[in-house]
Amino acid sequence: MTASDHDLRPHLDTNAADAELFDLLRIPSVSAQEEHKDDMRRAAEFLQGKLARLGFTARVDDTAKHPVVYAERLQAPGKPTVLIYGHYDVQPEAPLEEWLSPPFEPTVRDGRIYARGSTDDKGQAFAHVQGVELLLSRGELPVNVKFLLEGEEEIGSPSLGAYLREHQEELACDVVVISDGSRFASDVPTVTYGLRGLAYIEVRVQGANRDLHSGAYGGAAPNPINALAQIIAKLKDDRGRITIPGFYDDVQALTENERAMWASLPHSDEKFAASIGVSALPGEAGYTTLERLWGRPTLDVNGIWGGYQGEGSKTVIAAKAGAKISMRLVPGQDPERITKLAASYIKSLAPEGATVEVIELHGGQPVAMDLDSPFIAAADRALHKVFGTKAAFARTGGSIPIVADFRAVLGAPVLLVDMGLNEDAPHSPNESFALSDYHNGILTSAYLLRELGESSA
Amino acid sequence: MTASDHDLRPHLDTNAADAELFDLLRIPSVSAQEEHKDDMRRAAEFLQGKLARLGFTARVDDTAKHPVVYAERLQAPGKPTVLIYGHYDVQPEAPLEEWLSPPFEPTVRDGRIYARGSTDDKGQAFAHVQGVELLLSRGELPVNVKFLLEGEEEIGSPSLGAYLREHQEELACDVVVISDGSRFASDVPTVTYGLRGLAYIEVRVQGANRDLHSGAYGGAAPNPINALAQIIAKLKDDRGRITIPGFYDDVQALTENERAMWASLPHSDEKFAASIGVSALPGEAGYTTLERLWGRPTLDVNGIWGGYQGEGSKTVIAAKAGAKISMRLVPGQDPERITKLAASYIKSLAPEGATVEVIELHGGQPVAMDLDSPFIAAADRALHKVFGTKAAFARTGGSIPIVADFRAVLGAPVLLVDMGLNEDAPHSPNESFALSDYHNGILTSAYLLRELGESSA
Repeated sequence: MTASDHDLRPHLDTNAADAELFDLLRIPSVSAQEEHKDDMRRAAEFLQGKLARLGFTARVDDTAKHPVVYAERLQAPGKPTVLIYGHYDVQPEAPLEEWLSPPFEPTVRDGRIYARGSTDDKGQAFAHVQGVELLLSRGELPVNVKFLLEGEEEIGSPSLGAYLREHQEELACDVVVISDGSRFASDVPTVTYGLRGLAYIEVRVQGANRDLHSGAYGGAAPNPINALAQIIAKLKDDRGRITIPGFYDDVQALTENERAMWASLPHSDEKFAASIGVSALPGEAGYTTLERLWGRPTLDVNGIWGGYQGEGSKTVIAAKAGAKISMRLVPGQDPERITKLAASYIKSLAPEGATVEVIELHGGQPVAMDLDSPFIAAADRALHKVFGTKAAFARTGGSIPIVADFRAVLGAPVLLVDMGLNEDAPHSPNESFALSDYHNGILTSAYLLRELGESSA
Repeated sequence: MTASDHDLRPHLDTNAADAELFDLLRIPSVSAQEEHKDDMRRAAEFLQGKLARLGFTARVDDTAKHPVVYAERLQAPGKPTVLIYGHYDVQPEAPLEEWLSPPFEPTVRDGRIYARGSTDDKGQAFAHVQGVELLLSRGELPVNVKFLLEGEEEIGSPSLGAYLREHQEELACDVVVISDGSRFASDVPTVTYGLRGLAYIEVRVQGANRDLHSGAYGGAAPNPINALAQIIAKLKDDRGRITIPGFYDDVQALTENERAMWASLPHSDEKFAASIGVSALPGEAGYTTLERLWGRPTLDVNGIWGGYQGEGSKTVIAAKAGAKISMRLVPGQDPERITKLAASYIKSLAPEGATVEVIELHGGQPVAMDLDSPFIAAADRALHKVFGTKAAFARTGGSIPIVADFRAVLGAPVLLVDMGLNEDAPHSPNESFALSDYHNGILTSAYLLRELGESSA
């Protein structure tokens, strides 16, 4: 009988774990608001102190804005090193009047902790701290653990990239674990092993050198709005495939295993469509909704403008029009290459008399972990111990810049082990976190660290 | 030898004609500015007094805003009745600092009268008053003449439609003559015998019930901007033809005569393109630029909007997008029918998951006078007498709502005999009117009335 056969649940002191989280939640660490600068430091010091008491070498590192808490306990030679990332900053509480209890006075109702930051991300990040404590209370911590808890996630992590590069050696690890999101469904423990990347461009079309009267010039003057619409319409075919030459060249195809796994998830197109108020879910032919959302690239116009946008009518042929266009990318695709392909194709579509400029705005690498990775298997076993059910291995359609940063700077795979649920309402009034999810999160963290200790790095 | 063989030019007292116009130009009759309310009435009374002295029954009629001057002299029984329309209100003078001489102190430089309203429209309207006076000084006025001089043209003629309907019988006439624009070129006297009409709609596309994250939803959520672009792109084929079913059904084809006439006008595609800074003049295949501008219908998007229009990137799939779309119509086409056809076709193009609404904003009837009309022939003879050259018979690409109103309410054809030039810079600082154009305008009016007296109504 090895350590991993013990059941940790009876040893979790939920009263103590709750009380400590509540203390953290009482600190209004709103990163966006200058008036909370001291609260930010208080929250960082709270975590540093807690980790120091758990035997970590822990410190608070200043950045250009809010401090980073870094802590490490490297006492498992030969075992994998796990970097746990989280953030202690929270969204502003506005609109305050919609909160049923004060946002910084954690209140339990119907088994849920109501407080700003309860799920995003204090509750989930602190579950890992508690998970470590639980293991230590049983005399075990079979991996090397590093904590990186930042204070700028809700303002776009402006300092994190530089911090990672500056501390690259110190932060070296075998795997990064992040819990900062929602699982697929309340009864489906989820590991997210892939994220889409992003290539975001702006297209500007110029017609005449000034706005023209559509009566005097209509029929001869190039119309940049019509031209832009033509260009956009040509970017996809009638089966929803993107027509940019070479766009799909490097796309990693979904495996039969992934497709089968996702097909078995409790997803309903009808419910999904109803949740956003539409009658259909258009997209690339030949793929299910989850496949299109998680595993296939997309092209969406995110904004468009040109000419007269006011009330009533104005008979103008605009001189200029523009659009923001983003492409979500999947593993295999390179944002820089895709941006070049898109720019060149879009320029080639310029109709007679119109000039087209393409500006690169933003890019992000897609990320995927190998499903055969031992870390994935470890997470599966850990979640099974906590929930008594197999975990879902999902991807997500969005891009999480910090994940790509971890990949790029540390070269480590990233396991996203989400403990929350969409219904927790992160960023909204009355944000909450189920007590059961917090407690299961602590157990998930403990079992995961234990299982990772048994996996070969 | 009949009266029409006399040469009127030696009998025109240009000094007296200039002095009287200058008096009118000194009145700052800016219809848009409340502070000029009394000036508006002064200008109206100036014209009423002058016409009364010429033997007209003349009065100043109040409207909701600025008065209309109406005058008639019906002493040519059996002869046609000519209604001369003009306006005595002017644009605001701003920006005042750009004027080289005060806008309401007419100043002659290089043979041009510089003053606000000199060409638009006091100078051109008053040329008709002077034309009548010239004929009367020779003891002739071989037609019945009605003057309708309004004070609200520069603010969109809000009272004129109702005035026409209220005075429909009194205003009855055989032909309406308007001089309120620019001729084709300085050495080309021009009669404009056709105007395009207008059908102006707004298209609104709805996707989801709220803005969505393009990462989380991209690949499954309908994108109303992409949908709108697709719809717009489908409204024309690759030869520039509008694809709305039935759109061309009632289009009156250009005659060989018209096409030959326009082909002989001094027009250069290169110069036209250079004047608006474009490298090409795209449009419907098979037609020259002038044909496309004057004689063929068009479809232009006048405005478009949706999603994020700010700086940088925002990864949003918008809930809504919209566009303003106008179609210029040619004789034969009915704005109401075209609007219906367009709305129905556009709705039929709604891609899966998107709902499309079409709102009718504005419509205007196309207008054309029969080129074989005796009025056209009379204008041709009159212009030949003044300029010694054949007149150009042109159409214009824009729509002039008052012209359609005259057509609809009075049932009379409208002759547009423009005396100005684009270089007069109406609506701009340093608006001017060449003295020679003013004097030729007086002669044109006099010869036209004489020629109309010889035409059978």
